[in-house]
Amino acid sequence: MATIKDVAQLAGVSVATVSRVINHSPKASEASRLAVSQAMEQLNYHPNANARALAQQNTQTIGLVVGDVSDPFFGAMAKALDQVAWRTGNFLLIGNGYHNEEKERQAIEQMIRHRCAALVVHAKMIPDDMLARLMEQIPGMVLINRCLPGFEHRCVALDDRLGGWLATRHLIQMGHTRIGFLCSNHPISDAEDRLRGYYDALQEHKLPRDERLVAFGEPDESGGEQAMTELIGRGNAFTAVACYNDSMAAGAMGVLNDNGIEVPKKLSLIGFDDVLVSRYVRPRLTTVRYPVMTMATQAAELALALAQNRAPPTATHLFTPTLVRRQSVAAPAQENNAASGS
Amino acid sequence: MATIKDVAQLAGVSVATVSRVINHSPKASEASRLAVSQAMEQLNYHPNANARALAQQNTQTIGLVVGDVSDPFFGAMAKALDQVAWRTGNFLLIGNGYHNEEKERQAIEQMIRHRCAALVVHAKMIPDDMLARLMEQIPGMVLINRCLPGFEHRCVALDDRLGGWLATRHLIQMGHTRIGFLCSNHPISDAEDRLRGYYDALQEHKLPRDERLVAFGEPDESGGEQAMTELIGRGNAFTAVACYNDSMAAGAMGVLNDNGIEVPKKLSLIGFDDVLVSRYVRPRLTTVRYPVMTMATQAAELALALAQNRAPPTATHLFTPTLVRRQSVAAPAQENNAASGS
Repeated sequence: MATIKDVAQLAGVSVATVSRVINHSPKASEASRLAVSQAMEQLNYHPNANARALAQQNTQTIGLVVGDVSDPFFGAMAKALDQVAWRTGNFLLIGNGYHNEEKERQAIEQMIRHRCAALVVHAKMIPDDMLARLMEQIPGMVLINRCLPGFEHRCVALDDRLGGWLATRHLIQMGHTRIGFLCSNHPISDAEDRLRGYYDALQEHKLPRDERLVAFGEPDESGGEQAMTELIGRGNAFTAVACYNDSMAAGAMGVLNDNGIEVPKKLSLIGFDDVLVSRYVRPRLTTVRYPVMTMATQAAELALALAQNRAPPTATHLFTPTLVRRQSVAAPAQENNAASGS
Repeated sequence: MATIKDVAQLAGVSVATVSRVINHSPKASEASRLAVSQAMEQLNYHPNANARALAQQNTQTIGLVVGDVSDPFFGAMAKALDQVAWRTGNFLLIGNGYHNEEKERQAIEQMIRHRCAALVVHAKMIPDDMLARLMEQIPGMVLINRCLPGFEHRCVALDDRLGGWLATRHLIQMGHTRIGFLCSNHPISDAEDRLRGYYDALQEHKLPRDERLVAFGEPDESGGEQAMTELIGRGNAFTAVACYNDSMAAGAMGVLNDNGIEVPKKLSLIGFDDVLVSRYVRPRLTTVRYPVMTMATQAAELALALAQNRAPPTATHLFTPTLVRRQSVAAPAQENNAASGS
């Protein structure tokens, strides 16, 4: 591979001039910029990003740690970060934590080794104290979907309790009084807070809290199938179900479909996220919108500002979910009982 | 931040010994390994991956260029590569080409600058000759979903023609004779080959080729909606439709649903990909499986072997799609005409 010296020789300039052109220094003249660019092209010379990173202590790389990049929710997050990276001349390094404390820690460690100055981290399993130590070490690290006490200004999170409350209140306002909840069985704040929102809405409307109307499962389609099956199997009457996320709602919809329980005529169903899954579910899924791309964009801009010692953009750190009305919620039928199956 | 000298001092060993421990040299004794690890932990010392990359000319990074990481198809690809990276002690750098020649080129250029030795590239817009020049420069570069003449042994592709043929033949075998095709309007081989497979199957079964039964759209849900709407609007009779991918099939399913055309009773529908979308479509989508994770895993292993001058694993370079039967295909109804809407 060609070296910087080859480029300098061919362009008829000094190595320092080549370096100035590569690093977009204003000191490089237009003539040398042109000569160097042509020589680089001709020699297929690619400046070494690692050498540049070492010399300038700036890798031009934004790091992103997600749960699992093949999940559309994290795919949307990655796309938002990629767009910020593109716009700011940076590059995106992605690591997966797979919802596992050890892997989350290793993914962050890898980002640090690669000297990503700006770092957006989705990690729910690492304990608060360990995460706080990492935040102290890396000034450009920002958390997404987690609010870490003492670092609230470097967190971008969603008001999950409000989301669970919005979904449940919508069902109540449509006339439902027997409302189930399909909850994630992951021991994370998202699940606890959405469930709390559900209970809060019931309480505000003087509806009884009934643990038999809450079923847990993995926060995916098959978890939704299992939780819905369990809820039906318990034999309690209910006319509406709020779900932890759209994937669980899609699984629930499949079970209801298989059992001849028509949505929304016999049972109303509401999801959470509105990222990608909700586009494919029929009838179209009424859901609670998680503004993941907006939040990820803001997290990336915040991380870049912090990494570069700039004043962070003024913006909210706790985002508000919103209700998206589609076709899966209706008023309860008279004498309806979902568990009866017809 | 702590330096390697601080670690050596605290551990009571030389800098060279610290370096040997970090780089897993067999020359480091167990005692020094322990002392250095403890000192690193105590000082929060993170070795600089860029310095290591520069010194060893090995970044331990696998690069992946995809179309758009937020698309579940590419998400699956990224996950497969991440798992290979994890298993082999590497790290994943992701770039998006957004189906645009210039952006594809820039994403590859970035990977080269970061000295990714192993590189898996999904780029459909860069012309053959330019891609060939890049392949010559970078021995560890492998193409996925594209077969570049002269570099077939460094390509991992799918037999798209066979996929289109399989889908169409399945519809013919179920008794359909008036079969539509919703095709991607992107000028790429995937679209041309799947359409060719559709025509080949018709011809083999002595069915007429009718351009009025082929509609084009973006290869996504709304493109599928538009193409299906156009196909119905043309007023020609047809009892089955093969689709370029599952997203287009999902869009088509929505239009059919809105127009009271029951699937599969009134119209049979078949997709292509079977990545994520097909899980959510109801009735469950019969489709053609694109083994994207298997293919991406093989591409990553091939790229690593080539980058390390090892003999590449013996494996196929042209994968075979398979039919996945679910619920969206049935025998045609008597006197059926989809365009009549009932």
